[in-house]
Parts: sequence; structure tokens; C-alpha cells
Amino acid sequence: MDISKYLNGSELDTSSKQPLYLQIALLIADKIHKQILPSGTKLPPERELADIFTVSRTTAINAYRNLEQQGLVWTKVGSGTYVAQAGDLESLSEVPWPQLFTAYPQNPLGSMLRDLVSTPAPGTISLAAGMADPALYPMDVLTELFNNHLSKTAPEDFGHIPTEGYSPLRRAIAAMLNGKGIPASSENILTLSGSQQGLYLLSKVLLEPGDYVVMEAPTFIGAIQVFQAAGARVLSLPCSGKLSLELLEDFLIRYRPKLLYVIPTYQNPSGRVMPAQERQDLIKLAKRHRLVIVEDDPYSDLYYGEQPPQALKALDSYGGVIYLGTFSKILLPGLRIGYIAGPPVLINRLALEKQYIDLHSNNIAQWLVTMFLNEGKLPGHLTTVRREYKKRRDTMAKALQRLCVNEIDFTVPEGGFYFWCKLKQSGTSQRLLQEAAKNRISFVPGEAFQTVPTPDKEFRICFTTHNETVLLEGVQRLAKTLTQVTKKNKGNDAPDCSVWPII
Amino acid sequence: MDISKYLNGSELDTSSKQPLYLQIALLIADKIHKQILPSGTKLPPERELADIFTVSRTTAINAYRNLEQQGLVWTKVGSGTYVAQAGDLESLSEVPWPQLFTAYPQNPLGSMLRDLVSTPAPGTISLAAGMADPALYPMDVLTELFNNHLSKTAPEDFGHIPTEGYSPLRRAIAAMLNGKGIPASSENILTLSGSQQGLYLLSKVLLEPGDYVVMEAPTFIGAIQVFQAAGARVLSLPCSGKLSLELLEDFLIRYRPKLLYVIPTYQNPSGRVMPAQERQDLIKLAKRHRLVIVEDDPYSDLYYGEQPPQALKALDSYGGVIYLGTFSKILLPGLRIGYIAGPPVLINRLALEKQYIDLHSNNIAQWLVTMFLNEGKLPGHLTTVRREYKKRRDTMAKALQRLCVNEIDFTVPEGGFYFWCKLKQSGTSQRLLQEAAKNRISFVPGEAFQTVPTPDKEFRICFTTHNETVLLEGVQRLAKTLTQVTKKNKGNDAPDCSVWPII
Repeated sequence: MDISKYLNGSELDTSSKQPLYLQIALLIADKIHKQILPSGTKLPPERELADIFTVSRTTAINAYRNLEQQGLVWTKVGSGTYVAQAGDLESLSEVPWPQLFTAYPQNPLGSMLRDLVSTPAPGTISLAAGMADPALYPMDVLTELFNNHLSKTAPEDFGHIPTEGYSPLRRAIAAMLNGKGIPASSENILTLSGSQQGLYLLSKVLLEPGDYVVMEAPTFIGAIQVFQAAGARVLSLPCSGKLSLELLEDFLIRYRPKLLYVIPTYQNPSGRVMPAQERQDLIKLAKRHRLVIVEDDPYSDLYYGEQPPQALKALDSYGGVIYLGTFSKILLPGLRIGYIAGPPVLINRLALEKQYIDLHSNNIAQWLVTMFLNEGKLPGHLTTVRREYKKRRDTMAKALQRLCVNEIDFTVPEGGFYFWCKLKQSGTSQRLLQEAAKNRISFVPGEAFQTVPTPDKEFRICFTTHNETVLLEGVQRLAKTLTQVTKKNKGNDAPDCSVWPII
Repeated sequence: MDISKYLNGSELDTSSKQPLYLQIALLIADKIHKQILPSGTKLPPERELADIFTVSRTTAINAYRNLEQQGLVWTKVGSGTYVAQAGDLESLSEVPWPQLFTAYPQNPLGSMLRDLVSTPAPGTISLAAGMADPALYPMDVLTELFNNHLSKTAPEDFGHIPTEGYSPLRRAIAAMLNGKGIPASSENILTLSGSQQGLYLLSKVLLEPGDYVVMEAPTFIGAIQVFQAAGARVLSLPCSGKLSLELLEDFLIRYRPKLLYVIPTYQNPSGRVMPAQERQDLIKLAKRHRLVIVEDDPYSDLYYGEQPPQALKALDSYGGVIYLGTFSKILLPGLRIGYIAGPPVLINRLALEKQYIDLHSNNIAQWLVTMFLNEGKLPGHLTTVRREYKKRRDTMAKALQRLCVNEIDFTVPEGGFYFWCKLKQSGTSQRLLQEAAKNRISFVPGEAFQTVPTPDKEFRICFTTHNETVLLEGVQRLAKTLTQVTKKNKGNDAPDCSVWPII
């Protein structure tokens, strides 16, 4: 059907304020409504439509787009534009959300594993999460602080505050750090909505896609995720035994990394403590190369024997160490209060970035932490949790020694939250986890702490979340699983790790 | 000085595990230490060094880099590499932080203006911030909730919780929205660290650099900043008087924007309420174009006469409206609790992004808001603040009418926080602000709410932060400023707005 006879360029009014494409669309819409152009009619190609009305091809395209969006016409790719049937567009009425999303970096831990770890079956004892025992959260102290001090606080303190943080908290944190040999005043402190936010902000401020970052291997999964999501390439520095400063220097010369991320004390997951001499050597090397070090230090207050060596930040002779702290491990995670200590110029820049993200961290929790620190409640609380966690560590060490020593190697951590274990036998910790789920016990397999996750023999168990009775039952279930897997393994081939092409 | 005679390629051990560049660096370092190569000596160019040792140029470059980082040599750009003097590198020992930062999008509001607004001189009455009156924060209710309910709550609720939010709060928010005609269950809700975080997350999930976004003009500065920082181009839809749906449709057809950001009720800063019919027409248009609408609704509970029309989200017939709410304006900003309502597939994707940023929002505040809602404290609190804010609005309206009506136009807002004023006389609101600072009164000039800030005649004043006595004093200072500026303006030329080349 030649329909160009129904369309006439002379009907356009070039002096009108109404755009030409809209005039054309209205003309065609009118003829569709009057059924002069019945449904199913093929309309002229865009080029022809442009000729009919003596307009540009863009105008013709826009006219068809308008009609399409009104639901009056539809385009069949490679065929042409047709007058729509009633109902032609009904099936499109849902918004196709997932197709509108930006690309998302894959989680290093496969979703199957993540489900096992994060949502275990009912009755499961989870040794997976790195979390303080809720029974030890100082809720009574918080209530007391709320009752005794809230009425003495100006309500303005709970309005909008500077992005850098609640000033009394910044001062209190600086004083706390001074007590640890870290020189700081409040202008060096940015309070965070959890130390995870510090990693995120640092990645926004310091990293461009393609930049290199050096990290211990294994290391904290949340840091790996944030740096990889920022497009960084991660160089791994093995941290079992001695940290290889030679390898680090090699990385520095060859790749000029933007930063080194390191957990010097009770490392997550390995539990390692960097010795004092190694800390000094690292600072010396970092100074020489003007290397930015991000020192993540969530665990150093949780020592169960001697105090650990001073933080890298306390040794920082060149101003290149950025220190990350948190109250999640020593008080409670629900506060979501962490902090960064660094030079003011960095704090200011991070605050500009933070402002876009949440304006400032919540002041109820900032105020609670301030009171906790200023009323001198922290030392007593730390004494309590250290004593309790030490008992749990010892209980778990004895139980592992008694029940699992034939199947796994482990070292007893001097502080922090974790035992880092390694299977002696064949098979991977990922496979062990699958078996463990059947015995209602869970942990985190080692691959979760690697930048390129590949099944390995290591796994992390947390000894702080549960009391000794539960821990003992947990180790028994683990031991049972290890025995079962050992039996199954006998005569089995190594697991198939080949990469199969997807066709 | 020809120093190539001191260097001999035969000294390299190609079978060694030590990289060649390091062997070369060690050789040269040795000769520097022995002062065979005294300080100031010019070393061979990289190409020549490569020839001497029969290695690649990259190896030669890396050898010099190593020496440079040891502080033994230094490179003078365009000249060559020299053996360093003691002290040559001392001046470099500070980390040059600002040069290590990623690019930062400029704040639309100039820094001089920002200073005037955010850090006014002592004694200034600030009508700038859009903030509830701290004297009306329900701190007593929060203390009561803490005392009566904390001990009945499982401590686990203050440990780590899912990123999507504290489950009882998600349920309570869904119930609250149902009461407003918005269908939602907890899986539709993501709790946020303030609604600013919602804007940030949406920009991360929906926007790529170069995408178009449609916004009202003027509009909320925080939204402009986040979208522009994501690299979006903003199309402005004037919102004085009627919203032009024709212009919006034109934008939709020509630019296919990713989303429309809109504050339909008591718009910030204009105070405008989108009429019911316009809401229906907007939804109809959006449905036809499958347009994603971000509806920001911080003020709709703060009406001082009739209730406003239902939210766009209540009319959403195609699932394309994303609803943003907050407790900052109706309870207190320090909670930093907001929320997004949307389809579960969007909530899940936003939660994946949020996990990187802060794991989850703080549970102390989430728990407090839950108790506030579940114990039925919200309606009473809203009645109190509405009554009080209505009085303040009326007081300010009368005072502006009495003292400033010759110099400014304004309309009395039916709800929310703001009067939106316009100078009748010549001169800009930016200039007015500079004069106002001298009279210790401040407000936000209109350009802050524009995507391309240019000095204009409009400005925003907030009537909720201060009591009536302070408001009256504020308006008197404003009136004094207006009179002074009018006098000065007589016979003055228009301000010079030319762009001068910077040479």
C-alpha cells in the first residue's frame, strides 16, 4: 500500500514554535486515529518520509520515535515501521530493570559458596563471620550513657554536622591515638560510617582504573572487592612467614603501585603479626619510594598475651601512612563507626567525597562512642573482652589439637579473631565446606581471601562469636567432617579444576 | 667525564635469579658508595647504559629508577641522570598528596559563596540551612525508647545485619508507605544512611558518564552534585508555574534521558506542589516512554493546610517510579536514616553497591526509628511540628509582606521548609548575600540550585530552624539589607558578567 499520497509536506508550518518532527507525528497520528492508516500498514522508510516532508532524516526519525512512544507505531528491525495493533506494546509495559543497570564487578567468591557462608541451614554453627560476640556488646553502658548524658548535650549536636565528623569524637579519637604513639590532632581524623567506608573513599580519591595496588595474600575480602571495583589491578604479596620486602621493592620499581594495603597486626585471615623490625624496614622502603601505605588496624587492641608492636603509623617518618581504625570489633558492629587518620589535606579531600555519599556519619552513634571514650569506659570493656576471647582461643586451640591435628595444620593466634587452618590431605577447603554444611558447621574457605580465587587448602574459623560450649561443639562437627572427607578422598582423583569452554 | 669505562657488561650474571636491572643498579650503587662516581657525576643516557650492558632499554630505565628511589641519583628533565648530592632528595621527602588525588568535580557553588553560607560570622542568623529546629527534636522520646525497649531487644540486632536494612525497620517503613497509598512490602525497601546515599547509589547503578538526566530547575543542590559527579548531563525543566510536560516529552524523544529527578511536593527550593492532574499526566507520559522517575519526597508530611496530593509512587502504573524518603526533616538529621522504595530487583542491585560503601547503615539509629514508628510516636510528633512550623511560616509571611514587599516577590508555601523569593530591583541575590553578611543574616542565593550556576535574582530562606522571635529579627535584617542595596543600586550599571580570558 503506497501511503505517501496520504501525507503531504505542504501541511507543515515552518514558522510555528512546534517542532517539525512533532507536527509530522501529529499528522500521522491523526490519520491513524481516523483509520485512514489502519493497523498493520507499513509506513514509508525514514529517508522517504524525510523526502515527502522535505525535512532532515533526523526529523523523520524523531517523528517515528514519538509515534512509537505513543504506542501508535512499532518498528520491526530490518523490516520497517508499521501502524500498531491494539496490544502490540502491552507486553513491553514492565520496566526492564536489570538491563538498565551499569556493569557490576563480580564478587570474587562464587555465589554458591557465598550462600553457604552467609545463609547457613538452621542449627548451623557459623564460624564464618568475623564478629564480636553479641553477648559481650556493652549495651548496658550505652543505655547508661544515654540516660546520664543525653540531656546535657545540645540538641544541635544531633542536627547536621560537618562531614569530617562530630568534633568531640574527632578530638577523642586523636587523644586515643596519641596514647598509642600515633601523633594526631582532630584535623587528622575523619569519622566514617564503618571502616569499610574508609576503603571505599580511599579508592575513590587515590585510584584510577588500571592503577596497581599491592595487597597481602591472603587478605581482607572487603578491601579486595573495593579496590577491584575501582578498576585497580592487585599485586599479591604472600604473607605466610616473613613478608618479602624484596618482592615488594620489585613491585615498586616495575609497576609503581598507588598504594600498599596491609593489616600488620593479627592479620585477617592469617592472624600474622608483623614483627617490629619488619615494620621499620617496611617504613624505610616505603619512605624511599614515597609509597602510600594504607594500614588497616581493627584488631590490635585484642591481644591475648603481650601487646603487639607499635602501628606503622607510629613509625611513619615521611607522612605516607594512612591509618584505618574501627569500633566494630572492640565495641559493636551496629555502631558503624570507624575512622581514618591522615594528613589534613587528605582528610579534606576524603570529606568532599564522603559528602556526596552520606553528608556525614550518624551523630547518635558518634555521640555514643564519644561518651564511651570520654567517660573512660573503653579500658574496662577491653579488659573484659580480652579475658573472655583469650579463654575461647585457648579452648579452640586445645580442641583443634585434640580432634583435628591429623587432618589440619594451624597456628595459635596471639590476638584478633581467627584461626587460619590448612588441610594436610588432598582436596580443597571449598569441598570441605560443602561437606561441613551437611554437619551444620561453617567457615570461610581460603579462596575468599585471594584476589584471583582458586580452590585451595586453607580456611578461616572465627573463635570470638560463640561461647566455649558452642565452640567445642563446632570443633567436634568440624572434626567429624574432616574424618568423613579423608575417608572419601582415599583412592579419589584430584578435583577437576580445568577450565571448560562454554559453547 | 666519560664514565662508561667504570661500567662493564661482563660483570652481569644472566643465570642469576636477581633481575638484571637490579644487578646494574647494585654495580653503580657500589661505585657511588666507593666514590668512584662522585656526586654530581653525569651518568650515561639510558640508551648508552643499555648498550654498555647489552640489555634492553627498559632494563636500563629500571636500573636508574631503582637508584633514584634509593636517593643515589637524580634525573634533571631534559638534561640527564646525575649522582646525587647528599640532601638532593631531602626536599622531596614529603608526600605530594594533592597531586596523587583523582580529579574532583567542581562544586557548582563558588567557594566564596559557600563560605558565606556555611560558616557565617558570629551572631549571624542563618536562614540558609534546610534544617528542622533542634529544639523540636524528640530526644525525650528517643531516651524513653532506649530505656524501655533496649533490654527487650536481642543484642544480635546490633551486630552485622543484611545490607538491605534492619528487617523490622523495612517492615515498618513498608507499612507506613501503605498508609500513604504506596503499595510496598519489606522486599521493596532499602534503608539508607540518609536519603543522600540513595541519590548516590542510584547514580552508581543507573548512570554512565554522558547519560542525560532531567531535573527541575531550580532543584536540590545535593542531587545536582551527585548526578554531575557521575558524569551525567543535566536537562533542566523549569518548575515555576506549570511543569512543561511538552518540553519533557521533547527531551525524552531527543535525548532519551536515563531518569527524571523530581520533588513533587513542597519542592526544594521553590516550595511548589505539583497538582494532582499534573501528577497523573506525568505518570501517563512516563509510562508511555518507560521513563524512570526518581521521586524525592522529604517534605510531604509537613503540610500547613490541606494534605498534598498523593505521591507519584502511589500512581505508578508501570513500575518505573523510585521513591526516596527520609527521617531527617521530620525527626532529626543526626539519625542519618532514609530509605528507597522500588522493585526488589532494583533494591538488590542497590544493596550490592551499598555493601562496598558501608556494609549496612548503623543499627542503633535503625532500631530507634523502628521503635518510634512501631510505638506509634510519629503521628503525635508530626502534629507538634506541623503546628509549630505553620506559626513560623505565617509569622515570616507577615513580616516579609510588611517589611520587604517593595523589594521582593514571594509566594507563601503550603508546606515544607522554604520561602522562595525574587528581587524586584536590579542586582543579583549573590550581591545581596554579600551585603547581608555585613548585617549578619544569611540565605542561599538562587544560583546554588541551578545546574549551570549564573548569578540570578532568586534566593531561598528557611523558616523552620529558628523560633518566631529570631525569625522576626532575621527578616528585619534582611529588610535593612534590601533597603541599603536598593539605595546603592540607584544609578549603578548592571553588574559585569562578562567572561574575561585568563592570561
